[in-house]
Amino acid sequence: MNRQAESDKDPLVLFMPSGRRGRFKKGTQVLEAARQLGVYVESVCGGRGICGRCQIEVQEGHFAKHGVTSADTHISAFGAKEKRYAEKRELKDGRRLSCSATIEGDLVVDIPQDVQVNAQIVRKAADTRLIERNPAIQMCYVEVEEPDMHKPLGDLDRLKTALERDWGFSDIIVDQHLLPRVQKILRQGKWSVTAAIHRDMDTARPSLIALYPGLKNEAYGIACDIGSTTIAMHLSSLLSGLTIASAGASNPQIRFGEDLMSRVSYVMMNPDGCEAMTNAVHNVLNGLIEELCAEAGVDPVDILDAVFVGNPIMHHLFLGIDPTELGGAPFALAVSGAVHSWASDLNLALNHGTRVYMLPCIAGHVGADAAAATLSEGPHRQDEMMLLVDVGTNAEIVLGNQSRVVAASSPTGPAFEGAEISCGQRAAAGAIERVRIDPQTLEPRIRIIGVEPWSDEPDFAAQAEKTGVTGVCGSGIIEVIAEMYLAGIITEDGVIDGSLAARSKRIVEDGRTFSYILWEGETPLTITQNDVRAIQLAKAALYAGIKLLMDKQSVDQVDRIGLAGAFGSFIDPKYAMVLGLVPDCDLDKVKAVGNAAGTGARMALLNRDYRREIEQTVTAIEKIETALEPKFQEHFVNAMALPNKIDPFPRLAETVTLPPKAKQPAAGEATTGRRRRRRG
Amino acid sequence: MNRQAESDKDPLVLFMPSGRRGRFKKGTQVLEAARQLGVYVESVCGGRGICGRCQIEVQEGHFAKHGVTSADTHISAFGAKEKRYAEKRELKDGRRLSCSATIEGDLVVDIPQDVQVNAQIVRKAADTRLIERNPAIQMCYVEVEEPDMHKPLGDLDRLKTALERDWGFSDIIVDQHLLPRVQKILRQGKWSVTAAIHRDMDTARPSLIALYPGLKNEAYGIACDIGSTTIAMHLSSLLSGLTIASAGASNPQIRFGEDLMSRVSYVMMNPDGCEAMTNAVHNVLNGLIEELCAEAGVDPVDILDAVFVGNPIMHHLFLGIDPTELGGAPFALAVSGAVHSWASDLNLALNHGTRVYMLPCIAGHVGADAAAATLSEGPHRQDEMMLLVDVGTNAEIVLGNQSRVVAASSPTGPAFEGAEISCGQRAAAGAIERVRIDPQTLEPRIRIIGVEPWSDEPDFAAQAEKTGVTGVCGSGIIEVIAEMYLAGIITEDGVIDGSLAARSKRIVEDGRTFSYILWEGETPLTITQNDVRAIQLAKAALYAGIKLLMDKQSVDQVDRIGLAGAFGSFIDPKYAMVLGLVPDCDLDKVKAVGNAAGTGARMALLNRDYRREIEQTVTAIEKIETALEPKFQEHFVNAMALPNKIDPFPRLAETVTLPPKAKQPAAGEATTGRRRRRRG
Repeated sequence: MNRQAESDKDPLVLFMPSGRRGRFKKGTQVLEAARQLGVYVESVCGGRGICGRCQIEVQEGHFAKHGVTSADTHISAFGAKEKRYAEKRELKDGRRLSCSATIEGDLVVDIPQDVQVNAQIVRKAADTRLIERNPAIQMCYVEVEEPDMHKPLGDLDRLKTALERDWGFSDIIVDQHLLPRVQKILRQGKWSVTAAIHRDMDTARPSLIALYPGLKNEAYGIACDIGSTTIAMHLSSLLSGLTIASAGASNPQIRFGEDLMSRVSYVMMNPDGCEAMTNAVHNVLNGLIEELCAEAGVDPVDILDAVFVGNPIMHHLFLGIDPTELGGAPFALAVSGAVHSWASDLNLALNHGTRVYMLPCIAGHVGADAAAATLSEGPHRQDEMMLLVDVGTNAEIVLGNQSRVVAASSPTGPAFEGAEISCGQRAAAGAIERVRIDPQTLEPRIRIIGVEPWSDEPDFAAQAEKTGVTGVCGSGIIEVIAEMYLAGIITEDGVIDGSLAARSKRIVEDGRTFSYILWEGETPLTITQNDVRAIQLAKAALYAGIKLLMDKQSVDQVDRIGLAGAFGSFIDPKYAMVLGLVPDCDLDKVKAVGNAAGTGARMALLNRDYRREIEQTVTAIEKIETALEPKFQEHFVNAMALPNKIDPFPRLAETVTLPPKAKQPAAGEATTGRRRRRRG
Repeated sequence: MNRQAESDKDPLVLFMPSGRRGRFKKGTQVLEAARQLGVYVESVCGGRGICGRCQIEVQEGHFAKHGVTSADTHISAFGAKEKRYAEKRELKDGRRLSCSATIEGDLVVDIPQDVQVNAQIVRKAADTRLIERNPAIQMCYVEVEEPDMHKPLGDLDRLKTALERDWGFSDIIVDQHLLPRVQKILRQGKWSVTAAIHRDMDTARPSLIALYPGLKNEAYGIACDIGSTTIAMHLSSLLSGLTIASAGASNPQIRFGEDLMSRVSYVMMNPDGCEAMTNAVHNVLNGLIEELCAEAGVDPVDILDAVFVGNPIMHHLFLGIDPTELGGAPFALAVSGAVHSWASDLNLALNHGTRVYMLPCIAGHVGADAAAATLSEGPHRQDEMMLLVDVGTNAEIVLGNQSRVVAASSPTGPAFEGAEISCGQRAAAGAIERVRIDPQTLEPRIRIIGVEPWSDEPDFAAQAEKTGVTGVCGSGIIEVIAEMYLAGIITEDGVIDGSLAARSKRIVEDGRTFSYILWEGETPLTITQNDVRAIQLAKAALYAGIKLLMDKQSVDQVDRIGLAGAFGSFIDPKYAMVLGLVPDCDLDKVKAVGNAAGTGARMALLNRDYRREIEQTVTAIEKIETALEPKFQEHFVNAMALPNKIDPFPRLAETVTLPPKAKQPAAGEATTGRRRRRRG
């Protein structure tokens, strides 16, 4: 389609939200104008006015910024196709079909992101974020010529001709599974069918992957983050972009080992270990698919595309790859680039033609989940230097802006998940999640999961009775140690100050060290010197990794921090910074970003441009192997102190009164400030 | 690779048998020169001098036609790589490795078509024809970088990098089944591997379909013609082009119906009929694969490419497509274009990555077998007007030259196979295959299958005792009726002349008509008037189809005739012409072309350019539906006469004394000569 020659006198049309604009001759179809500008407007029926997917809205008024006065009178009146559609189906007030309406004057046209033509109930939005669509699957309605003895072209070949004529797809590859079914479907649809065309890359030949009789006005996709502990899956409409249902399940591989390395060990020790774990994850995925489909009233064979992300070990096990090589240096990934595969090859109970896309892995310990989180949060799209941290037993760290992105993983161990803490527990009802310590009395007050009031409020005792106070979860551990530091109970070196035992009965001797009694109940909960050390080690590893990346970027501060994952969602950024888990930053620029990996997977599902974006970004990301960096040890030692031996936290200090430093760094000691241009 | 700037002073190099030529700087590798000229020279090791596949021979002498004096001294002396190869393996006298030898003067270089580096015994050549190679599979040896913690690219990604660096393949797609195996194979081969790359079309992305540790210096393919009665399969080396083994088997679908239409009926009557027939053919194919591999000592997983042809119904059943639509008008093929598929999707026990290619079908009754025969015999490559006929229950007819090709099928019925003939039988020991009748005495002499002497020779009786004289096979029926005509026993209208009963006791009354006693034995064999009529009907249908094609081509004679298939191999062209099965032609230009479909399949297997050639040819072939042509009936009626009511057979008459015509066509009657420019 050649762009029509434009002149200054032709109407100016501006498409929102993309902002793309162009001049078109009066009488140009709005859909055609959008396509010429590369604005994605869905259309299944190819402009026949029957699918209703190409809805638009005219925004009225004068848009001074764009120099456009848009009015309802600048678009053609309701045509026959639109009238027929509006009568047979619902067309909301103000909505027009862009395949019918034509441009008659300057227009500002809004492409609504919520066009729903089926009475699908959206039970749960995975995320409120609207994702601009350009899916790898396109549903194409065509009317195929009937067979003719004079023209012996096969049924499939005539279908291909129609797809080229109406949709411009040439050189289509046809999935083998369709060959035996093409003739019946064509006759069932009386020579009208909807073809599902998969084309992920513009350079690839389009594939015919599914075929439906008549108009098939819906197609679905799933986006899934396979975590070590939890698997989260979203079911989205590929035609509206809406998430129809979401569900989660425990990763059944937990029975083969709680953490990743123990799963790798299981594979190394058991000849069939890899297969067993792969089968286990495929089975639970099929269970989730069934659950989502049942909830949403969707037939699994209508799911035509699927995007998966996961850390490198989950990524490999999902693909049936033995993860043994990831268990030791040089931590070689079997495949790091994006993987294109077939759902049927991965035993997923979807359509036989359903495609699978996996985002690329960044490095042996920084997986496709980190890539997805990067895609979601977009440090590579920003001016600001953004730090993205996903804390697990391995913390995955990404730091960068639009000119450069670096990434690393840091072996934080399971302390942040409460595993090495004497009173630690998983986040569950009864676990302490919030702590405040009075710096005068050293008395704590707490809040537990499942109970609204704080422990010093009247209703607490009554409400806490049914759960009890059972332990301290990850976010509670961060808070209690940070508050102990702020109250002067522990020094900047992490030592519980035994001299305070004289002032408070909560400081008690415990062999050669001291402990702090956080809760005196049937089960007293005590923070020991070892607990403090475990957190110091974990946070020092994380911070040292971050510092290495800051060194690579030659910066001594970050502009923005995103905390991903469950841990990131529940910890209070202020306390994380007081402990020195993350570098100094304006507190209002530190945000929990939720399941950013799942959001990134959804983006890649709904828009193939995001696949190219993250593939290019990952190729450009510089990966730092923390273990090989000579500075790691120095950063680690400095980071053992609270918040840090040498790094100042000036922006934190504006909000929080930090205890005075015991001593200033000696004049000769290197500071990050002086190292700033080291690699510049 | 940019072509080096050439100058008149640079040596001239001529490659045979292609005849491509060019000037190259002294010191240019011969392999490199061949590649620059687009001459296909195999090389698995990529110029490392270890695979020995790139052998050439220098032709010595002055080649006046090309203006080249080629000498052994115009090529570099044996280099280190060649010496090492010649010591470790055999390098025949005069052979050089083109990856090692360089151009030092004018050269005529021969690319031998029989380079064998393994001690493979070639048991049976499918055909003596040498097929120039350019297979869809390329074996590529590469040395892959080892993993490095500083560069976290995955193992597969580094393999891809090596394939791009050494072989120029970018944007490779990797078969899912390889993902779980890549790491082990790389380590087994100590980071040296041979990748099997499939790229059928230049526009398609190359696919990595198999991977072997170290140097894998062999790869195989199968070419198979699935006939209604017989399935023929050839196993060829993709690297030398040699056919290693051939085998045939009965089509097990015979138990579902002897002829094609009865198999279609079986499918229509039985809900699982299609699946049962598809499974039956897949099973027998797997049996043949096993047999060929056992005979040749080849592992089936080393078969990486496969080409299948067959008539439309076999084509569909092989692909699992219900052939019901082919059973009635408009005879719609499910798919007419070439099919690209996977062996694993078709349940073939080959490598998981093995690809399948099927040639296009020409029309609903003119299948991929006819396309393959066309590719083999090449009417579209000739100046001469060539007629290609494959006689079965449906005769497939192709007529054309390089400017235009037309095709049709004609419903000859089973008479030529002996099915509607009173004394007819399949070709087997004891069947009459040759007949001569003395025009004076009207006494016949015969020859039977399995017995060398004629019936009037002394040893016949003794030798024929063990077989008996049991019936008349297809070629015998053609001969006896033609001889009866030549002896004047039957008139040009096909009537057995009862008046001759007075002259010979072999002419006997048979109700209202007469019969000819061909053999008086325990089982007398008689040619009845009905038998003559059956052959007349069959040959008239065939000839009428041919005439329609001649009309389309505006010709009244053909230059060359190829008779394909078993029937075509055994009938005597002279008698076929006397009966008027085929049009008048110089008898020495009428040839049996054997299993031309199988040869065409082998060509498509060994050279992907032939795939493009036949795809383009089939697209351009004009298909004539005989049933829809108004002239068919007229041609049919004229063709009922022997050899024909109106067509003269002047070239036949030069060799054979034809009985005088009863009458000449009336002055007003149309002749083909007058119709010549009807469609011009």
